[in-house]
Amino acid sequence: MAMTDGRKLIPPPVKVLEWHGDAVNGFLRLLDQTRLPTEIEFLDCRDTQAVWDGIRKLVVRGAPAIGVAAAYGMVIASQFLPDGNDFIPGVEAAAEYLESSRPTAVNLSWAARRIVCFAQDNLTSDFTFLRQSLLNEARAIHAEDEALCMAIGLSAAPFVKECRGVLTHCNAGALATAGIGTATAGMYVAHADGHKFTVFCGETRPLLQGSRLTAWELMQAGIDAVIITDNMAAQVMREGRVQMVITGADRIAANGDVANKIGTYGLAVLAARHGIPFYVAAPYSTFDMSLPDGQAIPIEQRGGDEITEGFGRRTAPVAAKTYAPAFDVTPAELIRGIITDRGIICPVNAENVAKVLAG
Amino acid sequence: MAMTDGRKLIPPPVKVLEWHGDAVNGFLRLLDQTRLPTEIEFLDCRDTQAVWDGIRKLVVRGAPAIGVAAAYGMVIASQFLPDGNDFIPGVEAAAEYLESSRPTAVNLSWAARRIVCFAQDNLTSDFTFLRQSLLNEARAIHAEDEALCMAIGLSAAPFVKECRGVLTHCNAGALATAGIGTATAGMYVAHADGHKFTVFCGETRPLLQGSRLTAWELMQAGIDAVIITDNMAAQVMREGRVQMVITGADRIAANGDVANKIGTYGLAVLAARHGIPFYVAAPYSTFDMSLPDGQAIPIEQRGGDEITEGFGRRTAPVAAKTYAPAFDVTPAELIRGIITDRGIICPVNAENVAKVLAG
Repeated sequence: MAMTDGRKLIPPPVKVLEWHGDAVNGFLRLLDQTRLPTEIEFLDCRDTQAVWDGIRKLVVRGAPAIGVAAAYGMVIASQFLPDGNDFIPGVEAAAEYLESSRPTAVNLSWAARRIVCFAQDNLTSDFTFLRQSLLNEARAIHAEDEALCMAIGLSAAPFVKECRGVLTHCNAGALATAGIGTATAGMYVAHADGHKFTVFCGETRPLLQGSRLTAWELMQAGIDAVIITDNMAAQVMREGRVQMVITGADRIAANGDVANKIGTYGLAVLAARHGIPFYVAAPYSTFDMSLPDGQAIPIEQRGGDEITEGFGRRTAPVAAKTYAPAFDVTPAELIRGIITDRGIICPVNAENVAKVLAG
Repeated sequence: MAMTDGRKLIPPPVKVLEWHGDAVNGFLRLLDQTRLPTEIEFLDCRDTQAVWDGIRKLVVRGAPAIGVAAAYGMVIASQFLPDGNDFIPGVEAAAEYLESSRPTAVNLSWAARRIVCFAQDNLTSDFTFLRQSLLNEARAIHAEDEALCMAIGLSAAPFVKECRGVLTHCNAGALATAGIGTATAGMYVAHADGHKFTVFCGETRPLLQGSRLTAWELMQAGIDAVIITDNMAAQVMREGRVQMVITGADRIAANGDVANKIGTYGLAVLAARHGIPFYVAAPYSTFDMSLPDGQAIPIEQRGGDEITEGFGRRTAPVAAKTYAPAFDVTPAELIRGIITDRGIICPVNAENVAKVLAG
């Protein structure tokens, strides 16, 4: 369990997902992140397909948040299953169906399978009770994610409290989790503790998660957020406006090399040049101990349209070529510390990664 | 005069501006850069206000190109002036009027004033001949800019020829000059000499001059241009795809510190990390010897709308704060060489700047 030391959870600035009602008639309410930042709309999912669509269409996004949504989606699926022998096969089919919404999202599959196993292990002839148990298990997955975020936040907050300015990239925020995010967690804790500071949000081309999402959620909480284009980060550092950089991670190798949104590696190099510590915040589940180092992490290429027509309008010549790596790898040597729910890995090396993850 | 060693000028990939007809009835044709890259349209300026509008609305842009446009604009103004005593005051008034289109553009004022002085010095009772002389002087200003670009290109081409990939930022290209550009000049010369290479064009947020303009003009010439978002540069360097970085400059201090489009400094830091030489290309007129170093260069701040609603669509929360420096300063120590029309400054220091500029 995450180490929150009994401290009360800080509520996220907005409810990314929330279960309403009981196990038999309840539904899942998702914040529609595709409408952000200009509209705040919620999508109520009352059948499994609505959950599938919500995940597929990025209404809910971020590996941890998707996992929690899928767990609740399994509860919704159970509402439509007949009592009796067809119940468990139906639960299994629902998991397979939900997993197909975003096949590469590891938390999605993990959460759906956890509900399947739970149903198998707790099979009873009282199916109303079983549905209630599934909801309880989904709520447990939800609560665990909140606690992971809070644990990261408690570890990161002391660093944030030393800063007047913090720079972050992309959205490893509350919007990507069921709690207060990963990279943002320390910001929310420091803010709750009364510390005043500014967060510079790199807009994060091509998809602008920094300006569309991170700035928005920080503003909801009353944190001073300032948007910059990605190429302004070096100047912001040079002017002494930030005293730390912190990002999330998509995958972390056994030696502490970090794959994250394109642009992260460049920020780490710039931070090193300016003597600014560069931190990564991530839960234990982000580590892939089967990878000795970052060399083994494949870099996904994305479509050029996100570059050439990123804003709903063509801003590049017709037939222009693009190169569009979606991620980059930041070597461990450039990372001051990796802040996890199990403690801080610092200095970042294979030995310390293993030690901290072992708890 | 620029050192082109008698080599024939390479024509720019597109005529940014061109005089059509004679001095008395002719007109100035401008490529409408506000329509690029999706439409190739020309604007014919037949009166002084049309030239003023063209400069004001960025139909023509880039300090050298604006200067040449203003010179031709003075010829157009002379077409509407009466022969006789009111001619010279009219020329002076036209210069003042054209200068008001973009008050901070130094080349504009310089070119307009040069035509005024020329008219004063060559006053004659044959006003048709005088108008012809003014056109000749405007053509001389045009030809000088072409030669400056070519001289830079000849100096830069040997470096380009050693590369499979070159990275550039913003548009210090043919579109900003009357010739083959500054940062791009070496690319056009190397291409004309048969060298095959790829140019990675950073899109250059917030205004996307890299994707809208640089990629477009290189493609017109048949050079392999690839657009990346600014935050991909570090990864492109890490993957070994570029062997040099070259940008233009807005102003260069006496010690070789370079003010240029925001993002340039970050690229110089990233290039240093990867052992990739970073060059600046600029004509002698970009140097401001009254500034001992880059500390003295003020950094212009621009409006946040370019970040939050860059392309006609809001991509940031309403009321979001932004920080938007338009330029940054790259210290001389990060610059391998400054390639000028008078030769190459390398290593970059005050002594060498003075020596090369002295010719």
